[in-house]
Amino acid sequence: MRALVLNNELKLNREYPTPNPRAGEALIQVTQAGICATDLEIVRGYMGFHGVLGHEFVGIVEQAIDRPDLVGCRVAGEINAACRQCEICQAGRPTHCPFRSVLGISGRDGAFADYLCLPYQNLHPLPHSLPDEQAVFIEPLAAACEITQQITVKPTDRVVVIGDGKLGLLCAQVLFLTGCSMTLLGRHPEKGHWLQERGITFTTSVSDIPAGVDLVVEATGQPDGFTLAHQLVRPRGTIVLKSTYHGNLNLNMSKLVVDEISLIGSRCGPFSPAIRLLVQGLVQVGPLAQSQYSLDDGLQAFEHAARKGALKVILRIA
Amino acid sequence: MRALVLNNELKLNREYPTPNPRAGEALIQVTQAGICATDLEIVRGYMGFHGVLGHEFVGIVEQAIDRPDLVGCRVAGEINAACRQCEICQAGRPTHCPFRSVLGISGRDGAFADYLCLPYQNLHPLPHSLPDEQAVFIEPLAAACEITQQITVKPTDRVVVIGDGKLGLLCAQVLFLTGCSMTLLGRHPEKGHWLQERGITFTTSVSDIPAGVDLVVEATGQPDGFTLAHQLVRPRGTIVLKSTYHGNLNLNMSKLVVDEISLIGSRCGPFSPAIRLLVQGLVQVGPLAQSQYSLDDGLQAFEHAARKGALKVILRIA
Repeated sequence: MRALVLNNELKLNREYPTPNPRAGEALIQVTQAGICATDLEIVRGYMGFHGVLGHEFVGIVEQAIDRPDLVGCRVAGEINAACRQCEICQAGRPTHCPFRSVLGISGRDGAFADYLCLPYQNLHPLPHSLPDEQAVFIEPLAAACEITQQITVKPTDRVVVIGDGKLGLLCAQVLFLTGCSMTLLGRHPEKGHWLQERGITFTTSVSDIPAGVDLVVEATGQPDGFTLAHQLVRPRGTIVLKSTYHGNLNLNMSKLVVDEISLIGSRCGPFSPAIRLLVQGLVQVGPLAQSQYSLDDGLQAFEHAARKGALKVILRIA
Repeated sequence: MRALVLNNELKLNREYPTPNPRAGEALIQVTQAGICATDLEIVRGYMGFHGVLGHEFVGIVEQAIDRPDLVGCRVAGEINAACRQCEICQAGRPTHCPFRSVLGISGRDGAFADYLCLPYQNLHPLPHSLPDEQAVFIEPLAAACEITQQITVKPTDRVVVIGDGKLGLLCAQVLFLTGCSMTLLGRHPEKGHWLQERGITFTTSVSDIPAGVDLVVEATGQPDGFTLAHQLVRPRGTIVLKSTYHGNLNLNMSKLVVDEISLIGSRCGPFSPAIRLLVQGLVQVGPLAQSQYSLDDGLQAFEHAARKGALKVILRIA
């Protein structure tokens, strides 16, 4: 099969072996897959991953020996394949299973290929009303829903999302549904218009934001996003950290203590709420999808995704 | 009056001017004062403070023009003198008032002197049953109570406090009152005995602690305490940061995101609960008080407090 394989550098391999599903796993033909900022960071060395990249996808189940009901289903898939047996899995935190593999991120080939494998339990059959073009956003939208899974956002809160990448735009939309006052601090004014239409204030200037915000979501993907977040948040406020990047941050921890800031690391989230919000049109992803490439042009697609201000680049695979 | 004054270096000044209370402030004769790890950090340059050090004290109100009822009262005092008018004060967060001064820490002379001034609102008259020797621990004990003011500690949680300094020993005692399983990770085995007697497991070896703790309180006062905390806490667990020190920490933020850790900065806390716990004997401070010095021997007292493993050093002032 075809696959975009990272092995120090990213290459298209047209004769990569089609994966064999293990017990409890389905074989899925990938229809579309999205390139995520994390993919770009992985190519830069984050996670030290080698193999097929890609973790945002929609596809059709081709083989599912113990779950014949799944065959032919159009599905999205949760990316953490957990052991389901260890103490952490049993405590209800399978996305943190220490024995997990993660689709296209750690120990498991990913979605930028004709086929992938995932456990049955990871698969979410999709309603007909949800087109592939939207379904490919379920994984990052679930990551946005993880925020309200972890913390209470009050309808009276003043919230700022920093970063107008795909994840930032999804977080802003999800959190706005609480009724909160929402500002997105971005770098690309062309993204502002449709946010403003949806009630979300957009600015490129930090001086437009009155200090003392209750909650800041840091979704820039850059180390300097944190400094900005700390500058905006009020004493006893909360900073949700969404960025994963290669490298460390030099931090004045005493200032966090003195200001009694809460930092909340936030990663993968629940798929079912993301599907519900998409189906009801409560979160819009159409304006986020910028361009489509065939898998054959995958390297070009990566170049496009790495451009400043790029929105979601989609690989059409089948 | 006599005062221990920091002006690049710490000196005893026998002719320091007695302070004049401003409107709304009382003049207090200091009876006893405790030397805190923060005082040692301030001498090393933390906060860039110049003036009289000291913020843990008990004293007698000598002058209180608009509150004659307070005169003669034995009091402890909250250390943040807030404006009580700004938006943050009005929102119920006076300890974070941006216009505040802080006793012996920022913009206000402190307690290592014969007299100090504080607003009436900061003062807590003390019950007769609470001797000075215990009352001088109210301020750090309030800081321990701040943890349960900020987060929910569940009776089924596994909790580790790192650091067997004064604050660590107080935090361990306060959190143990939730019914949680409590381990203190320290460096000085001689402190272990009375903790064990109170149901708190004591160890000096991180390998004694099964990984995957729900809550870790970092109270070492050292940058490397954080690494240890992250090593012990479970995915989606919480680290409470109690240490303030001079300098920065180099941090892998992505790991916090992937593990979805909550970091909670935690500082000054409520005095009334601290007084109640002391009066009822639910927290014991006797074993924490190591030695007493007169204010005249203040510099010697500081040397003692800076020794490794030193417990609370008290200045007897009046």
